[in-house]
Amino acid sequence: MISKSTIVVRYAETDQMGIAHHSEYPVWYEVARTNLIKCIGLTYTQMEQMGVMLPLSELTCRYKGAARYEDVLTVTARVESISAARITFAYEVWREGEDKPINTGSTTHGFVDSRTFRPINMKKKYPDLYNKMKNMIEG
Amino acid sequence: MISKSTIVVRYAETDQMGIAHHSEYPVWYEVARTNLIKCIGLTYTQMEQMGVMLPLSELTCRYKGAARYEDVLTVTARVESISAARITFAYEVWREGEDKPINTGSTTHGFVDSRTFRPINMKKKYPDLYNKMKNMIEG
Amino acid sequence: MISKSTIVVRYAETDQMGIAHHSEYPVWYEVARTNLIKCIGLTYTQMEQMGVMLPLSELTCRYKGAARYEDVLTVTARVESISAARITFAYEVWREGEDKPINTGSTTHGFVDSRTFRPINMKKKYPDLYNKMKNMIEG
Amino acid sequence: MISKSTIVVRYAETDQMGIAHHSEYPVWYEVARTNLIKCIGLTYTQMEQMGVMLPLSELTCRYKGAARYEDVLTVTARVESISAARITFAYEVWREGEDKPINTGSTTHGFVDSRTFRPINMKKKYPDLYNKMKNMIEG
Repeated sequence: MISKSTIVVRYAETDQMGIAHHSEYPVWYEVARTNLIKCIGLTYTQMEQMGVMLPLSELTCRYKGAARYEDVLTVTARVESISAARITFAYEVWREGEDKPINTGSTTHGFVDSRTFRPINMKKKYPDLYNKMKNMIEG
Repeated sequence: MISKSTIVVRYAETDQMGIAHHSEYPVWYEVARTNLIKCIGLTYTQMEQMGVMLPLSELTCRYKGAARYEDVLTVTARVESISAARITFAYEVWREGEDKPINTGSTTHGFVDSRTFRPINMKKKYPDLYNKMKNMIEG
Repeated sequence: MISKSTIVVRYAETDQMGIAHHSEYPVWYEVARTNLIKCIGLTYTQMEQMGVMLPLSELTCRYKGAARYEDVLTVTARVESISAARITFAYEVWREGEDKPINTGSTTHGFVDSRTFRPINMKKKYPDLYNKMKNMIEG
Repeated sequence: MISKSTIVVRYAETDQMGIAHHSEYPVWYEVARTNLIKCIGLTYTQMEQMGVMLPLSELTCRYKGAARYEDVLTVTARVESISAARITFAYEVWREGEDKPINTGSTTHGFVDSRTFRPINMKKKYPDLYNKMKNMIEG
């Protein structure tokens, strides 16, 4: 399963090089991740209300091209791997009509309790949710 | 009483006009407001822990000049007025060595309960804190 | 003429109060303004290439309600007034299914030359564009 | 050579988890990188005026702890490696009084012509600047 989100580059996201600032890509990844999680019938907000947070433990971004103001981008997100302790998502940023992504990246998140910030064993504590996330890898 | 905070314009804060984006000024005002509140011997974090939040009800900004990457700015903050229900801060943004501010502005904030988001009568509920804030206007 | 833009509140746009940070509204206004300008058959990028920039001279925001992560908002933009030297846009931010906007605001922009940052008399220099913008007020 | 920059976490940088949003770290890295480049007697602005830009080709961040509003952080930057085509910087984010960094990361940048965005052979075109940067690795 893969989610596709449309991002139109905002003026505020550009920098004096005339391109979208590199720190915006993780923000766009997050929009795509939000949409991916919705695909399993859950909102990120509901997950936080259940008591699960997914703070980042790692982020990687590879910039192959530049995005400019008003560019219409498609950001894809998918689950790359999952364990009881953490989940990794992979992303691609595409500009309309091009045959290679302008950016690829990944984020790894620990599963933590939203009150204590302590690690959760997702597989044991929320087996249904864990399995739904795991199943996203295949299909 | 007036607080003075130094801001060095970040690359990420510029836009493709080559100047600091206008939405950064409210962020800098907030830095200056944080420092002003420290002047009464309290951090904003402590206020939130006491149960008081100050969400904005109004913002005004007047842009008279542009700020550029690596510019060293001084942002001043002071209490302009206060009532039992709300407080207004005034700000000026100065560039080193110039005789007029490049930006002036104000923010008005309601006093609300941090759990319920309902209005608080600050004068009755936290008279000491209210008086400290009120006294900042004169001196 | 009025433009309507859909904004879904991003996680990165929230703050520790659990609401969209007040400095995001000017960014959303800008998205709405970009879409409004497209209504006259021009992109903001094309205007900059023609040599016209619209830096802000004034911003006002009134916050009447809070926006939360994943909220679906509609941001409207329209031209409020125009002169040879400047243009004022008005904005409203609505949350789906509510009968009052959660935020209203305005931005005033000077017309400046994109190379020199000097004021342009828009009415004289680009009468067609000026008239298109002026006509947006009525209809 | 290593630069040390002080960052105080801004309210606007927090998210609804109550911690600094992960996309702020690349912005702080950039502040640290700006200060490191100043150590060789040059500003980033001067480099852009010389015709050299350093867009990112890669970013990595490892999050080991969380930063909160008003936390006073030290961000270190150093040159990790350099070639004729690109330069890699390494960063650490420390919180006062702790014995491990809360975040480590790196950015890799291509040297490009600021007008054409084409790669520059830095070693050939700006040997002095190249050597200054290279020398930062040792000392």
